[in-house]
Amino acid sequence: MARKQSDHDQWRIDIAEAACKVILENGLEGTRLKEIAAAMGYSVGVLQYYFTSKDELLLFAKNRLFDAKFDRMRAAAARRRGIDRLHAMAMELMPFSDEDRAMFLLLSVFRGQAVGNPVLTARQTERDATGSALFAEEIVALQSSGHVRADIDPGQQAVALVGLLEGMALQATALAAMGRTATSKLVRHYLSVILAAPKAGTPD
Amino acid sequence: MARKQSDHDQWRIDIAEAACKVILENGLEGTRLKEIAAAMGYSVGVLQYYFTSKDELLLFAKNRLFDAKFDRMRAAAARRRGIDRLHAMAMELMPFSDEDRAMFLLLSVFRGQAVGNPVLTARQTERDATGSALFAEEIVALQSSGHVRADIDPGQQAVALVGLLEGMALQATALAAMGRTATSKLVRHYLSVILAAPKAGTPD
Repeated sequence: MARKQSDHDQWRIDIAEAACKVILENGLEGTRLKEIAAAMGYSVGVLQYYFTSKDELLLFAKNRLFDAKFDRMRAAAARRRGIDRLHAMAMELMPFSDEDRAMFLLLSVFRGQAVGNPVLTARQTERDATGSALFAEEIVALQSSGHVRADIDPGQQAVALVGLLEGMALQATALAAMGRTATSKLVRHYLSVILAAPKAGTPD
Repeated sequence: MARKQSDHDQWRIDIAEAACKVILENGLEGTRLKEIAAAMGYSVGVLQYYFTSKDELLLFAKNRLFDAKFDRMRAAAARRRGIDRLHAMAMELMPFSDEDRAMFLLLSVFRGQAVGNPVLTARQTERDATGSALFAEEIVALQSSGHVRADIDPGQQAVALVGLLEGMALQATALAAMGRTATSKLVRHYLSVILAAPKAGTPD
């Protein structure tokens, strides 16, 4: 990989990080490329070389955070067995750090911005499918190993699980009040009662 | 009620309905009071008499749809017994009509707009609590009548349920693919397996 390419990538990342801060502080409507450039001490022309619009920058910033999160979810699953794999993925996704809360706030901003914009809506639909697939693949694997009931539809259960987690994340105040331990217990209850095979308490 | 007051209320409702259409078609950022006024054939001054800002109009339009929905959820519950009450409320909330999809799209727009705006965030936090309370009260009543397990926390389960339903609604394409029957079955599975008291299959 040429130095030039990695410089280009690093620029986009630096801009995305600056953009996140400005958007979360001022809201998207109050944020123009100009404000983001100003926060970085550059001219808007520099930003426009890397991103043609605010929407493109928002999309990149949001997807970058979720891509990294999806990697961490896979890593968290890899260290566990059985239903614990799903629980580890779910808890890795739930926002208990400022960084994770920022990730879900950016997702909210993006979903709002996508309304009335078919191109952005299509991009988010693809991402929703990616997120669901992560859980669906895991459920299929756990069905093969006998940890998850064979009579459930992995795709539908994945939509429900992603829904449960994002929907809980949206209720940030209620989630904060509930706390990490109660949330973990609640998620485990959902997973073990809804998905677990009858005899899959401890096997492997 | 004086005629004048009901005229005033009707004006706000008419404006809110026009605003919904314009926002869902053009997105919030592309919508100003001017565009909404133009869609109604009035001057922006008329709108400004009823709403001081676009945010206030969006809040009113969204809350109006959800208030009506909450009423229909209560009515749907009233016609049923036991866990079926929760199922009827949940299915009434899920978006399978254009009107209900519009309601959730407006919610997405509002949540996006609330990021970086503490006043709007506080307003949505209140609404989230209202939505959760609707389910929590029902869960408490069903615990009293023995239909729901006594050992679960009504408030936490309500947050999870609202999360599940809003999160599924957000994945509109996946939900449409799943269809009403499969969604109903999935929601019933969640309710009956997570919440139902062991012996609460048919009693009352």
